[in-house]
Amino acid sequence: MISQEKNSGSAATPGASDASAGSSRARPVTLREVAEAAGVSTATVSLVINKKKNARIGDETRQRVHDAIRQLGYRPNAMAKTLVSGTSRFIGLVADGVATTPFAGQIIHGAQDEAWKHGYALLITNTEGNRDLEKDAITMMLEYKVRGILYSTWFHRPTDIPDTLREADFVLVNCFSPKPGAARAVVPDEAQGGRSATEILLRGGHRRVAFINATIPAPAKDGRLQGYKDALEAAGISFDPGLVLEAYPDQEGGYRATEELLKRNVTAVYCYNDRMAMGLYDGLRENGLSIPDDMAVVGFDNQEVIAAHLRPPLSTVSLPHYELGAAGVRLLLGLDEAPGDSPVKIACPAVERASVGVHSTA
Amino acid sequence: MISQEKNSGSAATPGASDASAGSSRARPVTLREVAEAAGVSTATVSLVINKKKNARIGDETRQRVHDAIRQLGYRPNAMAKTLVSGTSRFIGLVADGVATTPFAGQIIHGAQDEAWKHGYALLITNTEGNRDLEKDAITMMLEYKVRGILYSTWFHRPTDIPDTLREADFVLVNCFSPKPGAARAVVPDEAQGGRSATEILLRGGHRRVAFINATIPAPAKDGRLQGYKDALEAAGISFDPGLVLEAYPDQEGGYRATEELLKRNVTAVYCYNDRMAMGLYDGLRENGLSIPDDMAVVGFDNQEVIAAHLRPPLSTVSLPHYELGAAGVRLLLGLDEAPGDSPVKIACPAVERASVGVHSTA
Repeated sequence: MISQEKNSGSAATPGASDASAGSSRARPVTLREVAEAAGVSTATVSLVINKKKNARIGDETRQRVHDAIRQLGYRPNAMAKTLVSGTSRFIGLVADGVATTPFAGQIIHGAQDEAWKHGYALLITNTEGNRDLEKDAITMMLEYKVRGILYSTWFHRPTDIPDTLREADFVLVNCFSPKPGAARAVVPDEAQGGRSATEILLRGGHRRVAFINATIPAPAKDGRLQGYKDALEAAGISFDPGLVLEAYPDQEGGYRATEELLKRNVTAVYCYNDRMAMGLYDGLRENGLSIPDDMAVVGFDNQEVIAAHLRPPLSTVSLPHYELGAAGVRLLLGLDEAPGDSPVKIACPAVERASVGVHSTA
Repeated sequence: MISQEKNSGSAATPGASDASAGSSRARPVTLREVAEAAGVSTATVSLVINKKKNARIGDETRQRVHDAIRQLGYRPNAMAKTLVSGTSRFIGLVADGVATTPFAGQIIHGAQDEAWKHGYALLITNTEGNRDLEKDAITMMLEYKVRGILYSTWFHRPTDIPDTLREADFVLVNCFSPKPGAARAVVPDEAQGGRSATEILLRGGHRRVAFINATIPAPAKDGRLQGYKDALEAAGISFDPGLVLEAYPDQEGGYRATEELLKRNVTAVYCYNDRMAMGLYDGLRENGLSIPDDMAVVGFDNQEVIAAHLRPPLSTVSLPHYELGAAGVRLLLGLDEAPGDSPVKIACPAVERASVGVHSTA
């Protein structure tokens, strides 16, 4: 049995006169209908709408046209303008994983806010990495004469540039070409983020700090490790490769890394991501250890629905997805300059919570 | 210090000749350029492109035009077609929270796949609930002559219908008008979902099953409670209002509800959502209780990054966001029929994991 939805007010209301509102609406009002209502030619309506200066149209006629437009609710066709200008007020956004990650949403949000600010709307396609769909999507965007295309990936990685994409003005977002200078790109500053994450622990008084890195090769893996080394060096602590572990970057990976971590005699650990930290929390608890007293923990990502809601809430650094989207649009529109051959790097800000206490140095 | 991004190959490569690829591209090829290359008039090119049957154009001329189109990489302007047909191949999607929830992405994914299947592209706007932005977005969509608009909310709720939206053919997705029959709508079947969640526990042999509902009024609150009652009734268990608790629907709420729950002498609990279940896990652990042996737990939502990754993995029911988006498009295009005055309800399928064992009835 499927019960009726209470709040939808689905109780019988026979003959409700607005039952079809929104479901069958007259086609859009046309230029011809405006002309007929105003008693003028379609050419005259067109001249009034496009505010042609030299057109000799009397004030009274002009007023009649405006009245007809208002009364009929005529909306000028934005598409028609592109025939004159050659480009539309669209910016395309090709994303490979809107659906499978909570991250991509913020790239969209940032890109949209910035595009909107400059009078552009976003045309978004989610390809889930399907190359055929991607090609069709870019072709569609080209046919709609987009101003340019943001090509984005859900995790930071090197990417090939599809041939079709080269027909457009484009910017890579959260990805980059392995060929130096081949394309403008905007990526997170993984090394700065890794350094900030480690510094949270160093500021807490910790000297023996482990890093659980990912097993999977990625710019994040290299950059976050580099940042860890940089932070140690700046604090005068020599790097000990024995304190770098590796695990699969999810909860299960973090949980399974607990045993190895506990052999390292450390007081603090920086995890490659928040999901790993979440699994490590479970592992530490099962060993009767408390956070932060027995082990201080820092993550990476500031992942919605996890980081702020663990017990205790997790210190971490934010992946700047909103800023990546916004910066991509600014780069595309020429509002920001591309810094030579390397991608623009966006900072990953630290977010401090209760998973790192103050450690009294032994 | 901000370290160089290793994988971007940012090592100096002076004079790299392709440094500006993607950053400064020629404007789109025009119809006029095709005409010049082919040595014909623009009118002739237009006739060839639009495949006018009665146009008297020789095969050789036709071939020259096609060759010029191919060589120059000319792309016909999709916008131009809308001037003839009156509507574009766009479907608008207005969402109030792409950014703040991992859910909305699946609505977009489902809507896009279905739209694409029928030759439409999605024009997406994320309003974050800002009414001015929403109005501007809908106006923009109307000016681009969209086929129709999906108006979606990130959580299932009643909604007002904005005046501007009424100018379009539209469908409400994950929301509905409180006025019966005022608009076509597609929503999750909360009551069926609540029943399925409870049935997972009943099938595990449990007879005393608590429900921790949300404190916040919402269709989900009413529907999920109704489903709980329906499942008990079908199993011949009388409903005990004392077994229904309320908590804020996040991890902290679930954690704080632990104490009250443990006074109820139950062997199983169904939580309003997965986030609440995640907090309850922490609370049960602190009381030395194990899941599922001491307490079987079921959630709701099947939330990515949580449900499958708790210890033990959480049994739950899925919120069908992908299907909501796809069904919205089918309803808009008239491929599915709207069932009279009430919203179309989409099933929430059960997902069984290790948080419910087999309970030997005492």
